[in-house]
Amino acid sequence: MSDTLGIALIGCGTVGGGVAHVLIAHADRIAQRAGRALALRRVVVRDPHKPRDPLIPLDIISTDIQAAIHDPNVHVVVELIGGTSTAKQVVLDALAAGKHVVTANKALLADAGAEVFEAARRAERSVCFEAAVAGGVPVIRALGESLAANQVTAIQAILNGTSNFILTAMAERGLSYAAALAEAQKLGYAEADPTLDVDGSDAAHKLAILAQISFGVAAKPHEIARQGIDTIDALDIRFANELGYTIKLLAEAWTGGHSHSGTGAKLSRGGASPAAQLTGTPTVALHVAPVLLRHTDLLAQVRGAYNAVLVYGDVVGETLYQGPGAGQMPTASSVVADLIDLGVGRAQRTFAAARLWSREGRGFTVEPPERVRSRFYLRLQVTDRPGVLADITRILADEEISISSLVQHEAQEDGGGPVPLVIVTHYASTGRFRRALVRINALSTTAAPAVFFSMGD
Amino acid sequence: MSDTLGIALIGCGTVGGGVAHVLIAHADRIAQRAGRALALRRVVVRDPHKPRDPLIPLDIISTDIQAAIHDPNVHVVVELIGGTSTAKQVVLDALAAGKHVVTANKALLADAGAEVFEAARRAERSVCFEAAVAGGVPVIRALGESLAANQVTAIQAILNGTSNFILTAMAERGLSYAAALAEAQKLGYAEADPTLDVDGSDAAHKLAILAQISFGVAAKPHEIARQGIDTIDALDIRFANELGYTIKLLAEAWTGGHSHSGTGAKLSRGGASPAAQLTGTPTVALHVAPVLLRHTDLLAQVRGAYNAVLVYGDVVGETLYQGPGAGQMPTASSVVADLIDLGVGRAQRTFAAARLWSREGRGFTVEPPERVRSRFYLRLQVTDRPGVLADITRILADEEISISSLVQHEAQEDGGGPVPLVIVTHYASTGRFRRALVRINALSTTAAPAVFFSMGD
Repeated sequence: MSDTLGIALIGCGTVGGGVAHVLIAHADRIAQRAGRALALRRVVVRDPHKPRDPLIPLDIISTDIQAAIHDPNVHVVVELIGGTSTAKQVVLDALAAGKHVVTANKALLADAGAEVFEAARRAERSVCFEAAVAGGVPVIRALGESLAANQVTAIQAILNGTSNFILTAMAERGLSYAAALAEAQKLGYAEADPTLDVDGSDAAHKLAILAQISFGVAAKPHEIARQGIDTIDALDIRFANELGYTIKLLAEAWTGGHSHSGTGAKLSRGGASPAAQLTGTPTVALHVAPVLLRHTDLLAQVRGAYNAVLVYGDVVGETLYQGPGAGQMPTASSVVADLIDLGVGRAQRTFAAARLWSREGRGFTVEPPERVRSRFYLRLQVTDRPGVLADITRILADEEISISSLVQHEAQEDGGGPVPLVIVTHYASTGRFRRALVRINALSTTAAPAVFFSMGD
Repeated sequence: MSDTLGIALIGCGTVGGGVAHVLIAHADRIAQRAGRALALRRVVVRDPHKPRDPLIPLDIISTDIQAAIHDPNVHVVVELIGGTSTAKQVVLDALAAGKHVVTANKALLADAGAEVFEAARRAERSVCFEAAVAGGVPVIRALGESLAANQVTAIQAILNGTSNFILTAMAERGLSYAAALAEAQKLGYAEADPTLDVDGSDAAHKLAILAQISFGVAAKPHEIARQGIDTIDALDIRFANELGYTIKLLAEAWTGGHSHSGTGAKLSRGGASPAAQLTGTPTVALHVAPVLLRHTDLLAQVRGAYNAVLVYGDVVGETLYQGPGAGQMPTASSVVADLIDLGVGRAQRTFAAARLWSREGRGFTVEPPERVRSRFYLRLQVTDRPGVLADITRILADEEISISSLVQHEAQEDGGGPVPLVIVTHYASTGRFRRALVRINALSTTAAPAVFFSMGD
């Protein structure tokens, strides 16, 4: 057996506590699988007096980050403080001190991946981050190693468990958005300020990381078009259900070549503009948005706080990875898997071979979201008056958007008030659809801004 | 970039042709991901005159296995001939000649894993086999690497695409078993002799491999209790559906400690006898059988020829891996991933650390299937005569098996003939249930041998 691998944990909150517990409680198992002992040598916290897992020896707990990083008996620094300022400094200092880094910090990688990975290559050390996307679901290894023979042509993923919990509660129990959110907060699935979860930002960070691995593009999260679930009304869930669909918040990547891969009907929604397909330049469109999926779609069946990633590879076809996307122990499982990989010596090989966030890309450029073609679900509140439908359908026709189906229920008893009108379109470019929306919203008969979502087929 | 990795392909049928195609057509991509070129140097076939993929240079095709194995420019031998006689000799010869081995041969590993892996350790070479289980679904990496922090406590898997295709066709389109099998054969999902697929043998081979990785047990496939789908009647599919269940052929592993892991309701079916839980000896029960799953279960929703593996880990909880379980390109995707891993140098680390099929186990012993506790679905054809139900329920009571629900439809118009009777039991040990069956089958009122399946909850 080789030498012991010494570990410093920077941050010991929920996930950190889980990592410490697993490392100590299952030390024998981990040593057997890593081929060497993994020893937790340092735990750095903000408040050393807070009660913690009794398995953690008190004498390894401190508040001194630098002492932990520079401890010669520490070989790996696990960054679990989150955020992008202190965390980034910790990671860069650790690498400069010759330590490997394991992190679950999606924001750090999405925002500063190039800087961090360049520092790691300079220091000839590795950065591992399985826990940064989809918690306990090993999607980083799937994309980077298991599917290495493939060019990924599309990704469709449920990456935000909070949003999926809320949408599931709305769909299955008829809750309003507000009631479902309140329940998610009560159960600890949503923060007091849930903005980053429900507006799609969290999923955009994770999508940026997956896009780097699969397409070599360094998309900044704020550049990724996103629409959250906060505009979804119980009415939309009901209409979608009537039409045979379930609404899910999806993070998606579609390549220009995707519709050519011939792996079946799922691929009809292509991310490519026709122009991109003609020139042959590989492009990828990235976006986070609520999408209407057929009830029988694999991702439509992912319930509650689970995450799932559906990957289309040009050799393998379609594979799905599903499991708990957050939480103490699922995330700890991924962090410890990275530590075992470092112990085995696998992670170092993977890091060197993958050359992530390096200057050599894979030739992909990011497609402007306006050019993505999709079918759309459009819900309007319109005044029940002659000519309303003629105005709306004329605007859509002007943008060459044709209508696949239209549902207008009778007005409620008192009549004359706004009534919901739902239109499902055929394929149209996002840009043209949004232009039509602006005009529709400006109609005097439109009582509230239009609500719209992409269709998954 | 390091030296080129030279590859010999032994066997160039469907999967071999796919591997050759991917290696040649995507050579640049593969070299980039492996950090070195992967060159197909030799392709050994039985009939060199058969037309093949035009990408394969004719001058590397031959019939000489030994020349390919001993070619100094070959570093990896890919065994794709299948079976256990010639294939085993090829693998042992390749290892003795100092070559790494990649194989998709589940039968070879399940039957002779210990011999093959011992030879590899002696030769200080690696054996990779992602393609041997679940085709394009990377479950070997998931169990061996991604979930390395976990002790797996249970596996439930759809590992035979043929059976799943047949069951899906029966359930969704009301086909008879014979008609569904004929369709599977026409579409190439089933062999002319489908025995090994439909009787559970194929799934048992794959389960033996998963059990070695997860529990360190070397169960021989013929020792794994198995029941195929060939006894399932359209009537059972209908009754199951009425009760809210879907029938799937599952390969399952349940550990004695499983019901203690506390990850929720899915765990109510424990593989452990109460005795095993008390003594604390880790045990695992392995079996392949049709199981009634609730319509909402993840595995109930796996349709057609797909494979899916649901893994319960004691740290992560439940994760699912799903995708194409067979076919040319999905299997080639896994074989080439193994080759890239060898190119990167990852596979060698993994092989050394995993110590599979070695003498050092993980303390697990295989539980006799009679002790597995489950609920059961039991369908009888009984003569419609007074006292029939009394006799049957008495026999079940004698074995302390209590009844959860019972469905007896009215006899058809002509009366007096055998009528179907469906009983769902509460938890019972398989041994006692089978004892009861013997007595029930011996009743003069039992018109045909009882049909029974486990319940997934």
